[in-house]
Amino acid sequence: MSELTILISCPDKVGLVTNITRVLAAHQLNIVAMREFVDEEKKGFFTRIACTGDLEAPHKLKEKLLESLPNSAEVNLINHSEKQIAVLVTKEYHCLAEILVKNQFKTLGANVKCVIGNYEGLKDFTESLGIPYHYISHENKDKATFEAEVKEVINQFEVDYIVLAKFMRILSPDFVKDFAGKIINIHHSFLPAFIGANPYKQAFERGVKIIGATAHFVTDNLDEGPIITQHTTHIDHNFGVKEMVRAGKEIEKKVLLEALELIFENRVFVSGNKTIVFK
Amino acid sequence: MSELTILISCPDKVGLVTNITRVLAAHQLNIVAMREFVDEEKKGFFTRIACTGDLEAPHKLKEKLLESLPNSAEVNLINHSEKQIAVLVTKEYHCLAEILVKNQFKTLGANVKCVIGNYEGLKDFTESLGIPYHYISHENKDKATFEAEVKEVINQFEVDYIVLAKFMRILSPDFVKDFAGKIINIHHSFLPAFIGANPYKQAFERGVKIIGATAHFVTDNLDEGPIITQHTTHIDHNFGVKEMVRAGKEIEKKVLLEALELIFENRVFVSGNKTIVFK
Amino acid sequence: MSELTILISCPDKVGLVTNITRVLAAHQLNIVAMREFVDEEKKGFFTRIACTGDLEAPHKLKEKLLESLPNSAEVNLINHSEKQIAVLVTKEYHCLAEILVKNQFKTLGANVKCVIGNYEGLKDFTESLGIPYHYISHENKDKATFEAEVKEVINQFEVDYIVLAKFMRILSPDFVKDFAGKIINIHHSFLPAFIGANPYKQAFERGVKIIGATAHFVTDNLDEGPIITQHTTHIDHNFGVKEMVRAGKEIEKKVLLEALELIFENRVFVSGNKTIVFK
Amino acid sequence: MSELTILISCPDKVGLVTNITRVLAAHQLNIVAMREFVDEEKKGFFTRIACTGDLEAPHKLKEKLLESLPNSAEVNLINHSEKQIAVLVTKEYHCLAEILVKNQFKTLGANVKCVIGNYEGLKDFTESLGIPYHYISHENKDKATFEAEVKEVINQFEVDYIVLAKFMRILSPDFVKDFAGKIINIHHSFLPAFIGANPYKQAFERGVKIIGATAHFVTDNLDEGPIITQHTTHIDHNFGVKEMVRAGKEIEKKVLLEALELIFENRVFVSGNKTIVFK
Repeated sequence: MSELTILISCPDKVGLVTNITRVLAAHQLNIVAMREFVDEEKKGFFTRIACTGDLEAPHKLKEKLLESLPNSAEVNLINHSEKQIAVLVTKEYHCLAEILVKNQFKTLGANVKCVIGNYEGLKDFTESLGIPYHYISHENKDKATFEAEVKEVINQFEVDYIVLAKFMRILSPDFVKDFAGKIINIHHSFLPAFIGANPYKQAFERGVKIIGATAHFVTDNLDEGPIITQHTTHIDHNFGVKEMVRAGKEIEKKVLLEALELIFENRVFVSGNKTIVFK
Repeated sequence: MSELTILISCPDKVGLVTNITRVLAAHQLNIVAMREFVDEEKKGFFTRIACTGDLEAPHKLKEKLLESLPNSAEVNLINHSEKQIAVLVTKEYHCLAEILVKNQFKTLGANVKCVIGNYEGLKDFTESLGIPYHYISHENKDKATFEAEVKEVINQFEVDYIVLAKFMRILSPDFVKDFAGKIINIHHSFLPAFIGANPYKQAFERGVKIIGATAHFVTDNLDEGPIITQHTTHIDHNFGVKEMVRAGKEIEKKVLLEALELIFENRVFVSGNKTIVFK
Repeated sequence: MSELTILISCPDKVGLVTNITRVLAAHQLNIVAMREFVDEEKKGFFTRIACTGDLEAPHKLKEKLLESLPNSAEVNLINHSEKQIAVLVTKEYHCLAEILVKNQFKTLGANVKCVIGNYEGLKDFTESLGIPYHYISHENKDKATFEAEVKEVINQFEVDYIVLAKFMRILSPDFVKDFAGKIINIHHSFLPAFIGANPYKQAFERGVKIIGATAHFVTDNLDEGPIITQHTTHIDHNFGVKEMVRAGKEIEKKVLLEALELIFENRVFVSGNKTIVFK
Repeated sequence: MSELTILISCPDKVGLVTNITRVLAAHQLNIVAMREFVDEEKKGFFTRIACTGDLEAPHKLKEKLLESLPNSAEVNLINHSEKQIAVLVTKEYHCLAEILVKNQFKTLGANVKCVIGNYEGLKDFTESLGIPYHYISHENKDKATFEAEVKEVINQFEVDYIVLAKFMRILSPDFVKDFAGKIINIHHSFLPAFIGANPYKQAFERGVKIIGATAHFVTDNLDEGPIITQHTTHIDHNFGVKEMVRAGKEIEKKVLLEALELIFENRVFVSGNKTIVFK
């Protein structure tokens, strides 16, 4: 008996759940948990099914599922091998440390294959936790060259996701396209407030009483990709920019790690510029 | 095309979802949202299915569903007629007011048929919002007599639920049995902390930094029924008992109303001494 | 022995607290609670002092305090008479109801003198709770005329604050100037995100995972006045615009009532476009 | 110009703030932030004053302050040298890692002098972050012997605080007395609910909808010392004991680190079995 997670998305129509469950029953799979969502606006159907059973030929199951579904359906069978990830950083340690510590104690739900940084500051820390650190400066070279060097390192591994753990360079559309749907960013603001640089300074000047952070998939439009998770925390007049940054970092790491956990457990679908998250 | 919510609970076994969805498909019902949960410990299966379609003979659907399920299955078909409720109060207005205001503006998801209070203080307020108030004192009579009088009023209506909105009398096992699974209480504490009387005084003396409230179904064991929802709020050393009570009331009404919303939308199953809540 | 709250704001300099407390001691006033804040950026000093004592000549105390402070100091002595307020509404009941219910049970910390609405829908409800409702339509008249009619009603009372409890008309700079620092608004968004109309539609389209609300003082710049308090709540992909509006209303009333409580307890200073809130 | 934090506690009487601020002014100290609290029940006065100035003779200032205050007053002058701490652990890494990472990047507000563990599991991790790990097994020896060995290590350093970062042995009254007011524990429950062992199992069986954690000072009575800070998080029926433990760990580290930050910034007073926390 092994565990299997099945992710399906397709245009909505009557009878989809019946069709799907009939195929699963025919393969002697037992449904442990099933979640589905119909996007009424875009007429899309999404389901996540966790099941158990002895599955001899996964490709046959996939074939049968596709036969029972509308033409453009996507079916994804996931056994519980762990995800492989690369982490990109700049100078700040807080998100990286959270990832590396959980990686070290096998509670991340993924394996960190490498860390790439455009500064050297986090090299010793990363290596002290047993992960190779690739220092690739962005200075004195154009973006294409810099990104080619980054890509070269990433492509040494088969990574499922690239995590921008406070990586402060904007990636080119070409880079994003190469890893479409695979890049996760933590934005130091509760988007769409305070888009862009220096959000804490903006927040300080506006006199807000909450700050927050947003984890999202990266698309061509800076700070505009599908949002995975967000949290906020209260601040007051005693918070200068420095105190906001400190409070913000706690939220950032919480939000990023929560998003990663959801993704690594195959709970997140992207639909247009939104996500469907089966918690 | 009408909407229908189906609640099913039964012992878990392989193929339940397939069996159920096959019956629904045979009746041309389209599943809009489906949630299910398997209680691994007690081997119980619970599902809530929202569907649309033209259902001519509900009793036939129920029959077919029961045929496809284990013997002890419970099947509940709910169309979207509103629930009817009675509200019991003592002296505090905050939960009652929230219920009556939402009732007035048709956003409660239920109709308040009557309010019963063992003091007169909330009579004028209740009546000013157009709801009959039945003043039944508990003084100078034994509990059985008092409860008989309460029951007489309640039984004038066909109520689905009895809401104890800060009703400060302990109900007898007989009363609870008569309305088994239908009585909802708001407890002024985050159970199981501070069971019993004067929780805010207990909380003050212990010097806690959070207080909370708990909505639960009432069973024979005081403060021990299945918990539906809970929230907490932060307090600090500036809070005396009075300030705790004030903060507590805000939490109490939030928790109770959230629980009622979940119940009135048929999202709550009771399983032993716990609840399964499909949010 | 009576209670007195003293609010002082002035340019910061060395020795202010000593000067102030020396004057209070000379008047035999006992400090029960004292909060102060120095705005390092604008070099402003703010203090809130709660004290007890027998004060025979408040104007003498004020005089002595002013003598001990820099020239531009503002000193405000507040005994605990309740604030008087007017409430402006349009069609939505949720904030108004919360205010009127607390007013009815004397837990608002202020007296509602009148409700003014530009639609008739909330008239019966307001009157059923014993408060006069002034229906002033904005239709078929220019803004100046409409506002003159509103002002005429307000000026029948000596109101300390005007609460915009989901009042959906933009007030003119002239109106705002006439009641400078006295108008409190609840904005249906966690500013500065989703400024302007239809924030829930904007939020739905952006696919955010939190929504919120903001209570702020009204200034000439729409949605730009000093923020008093903000809260957020989590949503997910199941929330359409309708569900967001429902969840948003719960946050809106919580935020507005929290702001009012802080203001009525004299805990809020305005400094430029920000607030200092001594909770 | 240097910074100085002054902590004073004494029986309450009229004029304390005036007396104190007069002494500070005489020493040319400028008050940057002042917080005070009067415990009405126990008639205690507590103040935390942050000030700046050139202080040549701290002991003279202390003397003058004591002269101006009731006999039993405690005055504590703190310059901003960092605290020194020892950390005790058993098997769980999550709180320790958070402490060690912040220690490494100098954002803890304290220096970790040593880690002591009664198992060897966390040795390599601790040492990889440059901190000595003392493995002291509790097996095959009585508690007095075990504690003597622990004390011997701690006494090699001048530690201000001992942090129990998921240290699962109950300390003897003698040990606690030796470090009175200096031992901080993280309890895996929102006290006073679920006191004692296996709180997550207790929580699972009770079917609660929130779990939490409590940071407190350690006194003779297990789980009964003054509470510093608490947080809760929502769970639902999908959480088995394993999932509760995972969610609980996130809360535990958040609560413990928040408590440590408050303590290291000298914001926490103990009064009887409660704390006063000037945030």
